[in-house]
Amino acid sequence: MSPAADRQRFARIALSFVAEPGDLMLGALLRACSPAEAFAAICDGRPPELADAAAYGRIGGLGRSIERWAARLGAVPTKSRLAAWENAGIRVVCPGDPEWPTQLEVLGDTQPVVMWLCGSADLRFACLRSVSMVGARAATAYGTHVAMEMAAALAERGWTVVSGGAFGIDACAHRGALSANGVTVAVLAGGLSYGYPQGNHELFAAIRGQGVLVSEWPPDRRPTRPGFLVRNRVIAALSCGTVVVEAGLRSGALSTARHARDLCRPLMAVPGPVTSQMSEGCHEIIREWSALCVTTAQDVIEHVSPAGEGLGARRRGPAYPRDRLDPVSTAVLEAVPARTGAGPAAIAVAAGVDLNTAIGSLGALAAAGFVERCARGWRIRKKA
Amino acid sequence: MSPAADRQRFARIALSFVAEPGDLMLGALLRACSPAEAFAAICDGRPPELADAAAYGRIGGLGRSIERWAARLGAVPTKSRLAAWENAGIRVVCPGDPEWPTQLEVLGDTQPVVMWLCGSADLRFACLRSVSMVGARAATAYGTHVAMEMAAALAERGWTVVSGGAFGIDACAHRGALSANGVTVAVLAGGLSYGYPQGNHELFAAIRGQGVLVSEWPPDRRPTRPGFLVRNRVIAALSCGTVVVEAGLRSGALSTARHARDLCRPLMAVPGPVTSQMSEGCHEIIREWSALCVTTAQDVIEHVSPAGEGLGARRRGPAYPRDRLDPVSTAVLEAVPARTGAGPAAIAVAAGVDLNTAIGSLGALAAAGFVERCARGWRIRKKA
Repeated sequence: MSPAADRQRFARIALSFVAEPGDLMLGALLRACSPAEAFAAICDGRPPELADAAAYGRIGGLGRSIERWAARLGAVPTKSRLAAWENAGIRVVCPGDPEWPTQLEVLGDTQPVVMWLCGSADLRFACLRSVSMVGARAATAYGTHVAMEMAAALAERGWTVVSGGAFGIDACAHRGALSANGVTVAVLAGGLSYGYPQGNHELFAAIRGQGVLVSEWPPDRRPTRPGFLVRNRVIAALSCGTVVVEAGLRSGALSTARHARDLCRPLMAVPGPVTSQMSEGCHEIIREWSALCVTTAQDVIEHVSPAGEGLGARRRGPAYPRDRLDPVSTAVLEAVPARTGAGPAAIAVAAGVDLNTAIGSLGALAAAGFVERCARGWRIRKKA
Repeated sequence: MSPAADRQRFARIALSFVAEPGDLMLGALLRACSPAEAFAAICDGRPPELADAAAYGRIGGLGRSIERWAARLGAVPTKSRLAAWENAGIRVVCPGDPEWPTQLEVLGDTQPVVMWLCGSADLRFACLRSVSMVGARAATAYGTHVAMEMAAALAERGWTVVSGGAFGIDACAHRGALSANGVTVAVLAGGLSYGYPQGNHELFAAIRGQGVLVSEWPPDRRPTRPGFLVRNRVIAALSCGTVVVEAGLRSGALSTARHARDLCRPLMAVPGPVTSQMSEGCHEIIREWSALCVTTAQDVIEHVSPAGEGLGARRRGPAYPRDRLDPVSTAVLEAVPARTGAGPAAIAVAAGVDLNTAIGSLGALAAAGFVERCARGWRIRKKA
């Protein structure tokens, strides 16, 4: 790496220690100048001299932000401390690096400044075919079951499962993917060394081995309450689409869902019992935000795949030979009585088609061996 | 009643004994001539002389139908037999009668020729504000619970519940409405004296007392398999909208749903566990037919009410004062940390709004007593 590139890289890392992730002011500043110029300005305690006066106008209030960031300059680590994290397996990726997920660009001024990673998977490659699966911490047995099964089925079909590493649905989404030997990405709201929540430490170890842990916060940073909401935009932006498995009406998972919707990524929700508060958020976003109602991994894949890909046969109950019939023939066949028989007019009404269509279908169904003529019209042909 | 009107009425009743309900050929014939002319033609065993040659062309194949109907002339009851049914509390209503539900006209040529009724409620009035609630016979405990609760809540708000009198969801829909002292309409697929299924006889007695039993078939007619599908169009046409509570992928309830959709009446479905086969049909029609996802009676009423009526406050969890805030203020408020505080930029990102909006909302929220300034920016104001 050239000394100039190295300086920009260190500046980005330093910025990630003085500013909070998602800081709009920093995002605007980095549109107007380089990371090294921005960091130098913070060290100087005053806004940089910007060539682009228009950009300068967009970031009014910058002086106060510079002061706030300058007050945290003591948090910027030494190179040896950074090396210690690197030795512990924590790597930093920056925009432009091969592992940087370029789809984060949709976040505009709130795009992460750097990302801290830990784990064997390549983040950019893993997220090319990925689905975010999020939901309530206080998940029910139903929700945890569905999250595990759906995540495992997605992983089996080569899809990466992205989630937030929390208890409940998040943990089950990660575990389901791991159980199918799939790749999973946990986007944490605090530092990777801190590893919140502590109760998921074993899960995080497994994710490091088979996927990747990700955070915008420096490794030893403790998570804060607003941090979880800030983090959610990254979960939505990293993946090809977001599925909410279970969520109460005030669940944080709905903030991830809102980001997915605002980013125009497919937003999906798993329905559940209307008697369960933990499904109320899912039903709400199906109704009010037009989230897609998904019940299987296959449904999810159809919605996140590029047009035409991922289309599989829909499940429609047991696979009788009659399942190969077109919808009209199926309707007509279902309207034919088993033994007593019925005339074409009655069959047409029962099938909801007009008389000519019914007569045409009955002929085709007879030729295919499904029905036969009888005294009263047509009936189901008994199997030989 | 004039002798002429009486003759037409008797002809309609007689036609209902020789032709099956929903017979398209009879519907077309009754567009071209009066019921008395149609019945006279059947007695003569040949098509009537029609003034309107064009109408005659539309009903090709009429000769064969006339023969089929003529073969059943022996089933036409004597006037004394009709009087016996009347004494047993079974009344006949015909198009033009005050109790005839005029909304059945949408069925066109498959409109019922007559309807047999038994019960205290006025069918036409009962159906002015009515919802059809249908579903699987093999319902689960979840489905029966939801059907009962939702039907009771609809009845409490003055809505009539229409269903098919079958075991499972249908029976629970009727029972729920009865439990709330509401009106319920059971549209049976066989004669009212036959009263299929026998296991619901006590339920039918209760419906007679508080609602009305309805059938297109003569009172002593045994139901046939295609008859159930033919009957379903009447359930869909009688009511202002149809709700499917539970249905497998091959459930007959989906035929009622298809009729509601084809008649452009609101079609709704109750979601359920994706692990339950009995909810697969509901999820399928939400996905594929754009059925509305409903979770409460209030949802249903919003969809079946004339525009503007029936709009109630949506349930969004416990009613905190913050529930009165607009969506943007709510998002900003939820992004404000409880104790530690956060700056407007971080709050803006967390809330998914731009910085100016966040600052504006924070001012309004402070004025309303929800948040307060602190060293680090803004935090939730503690209750006094």
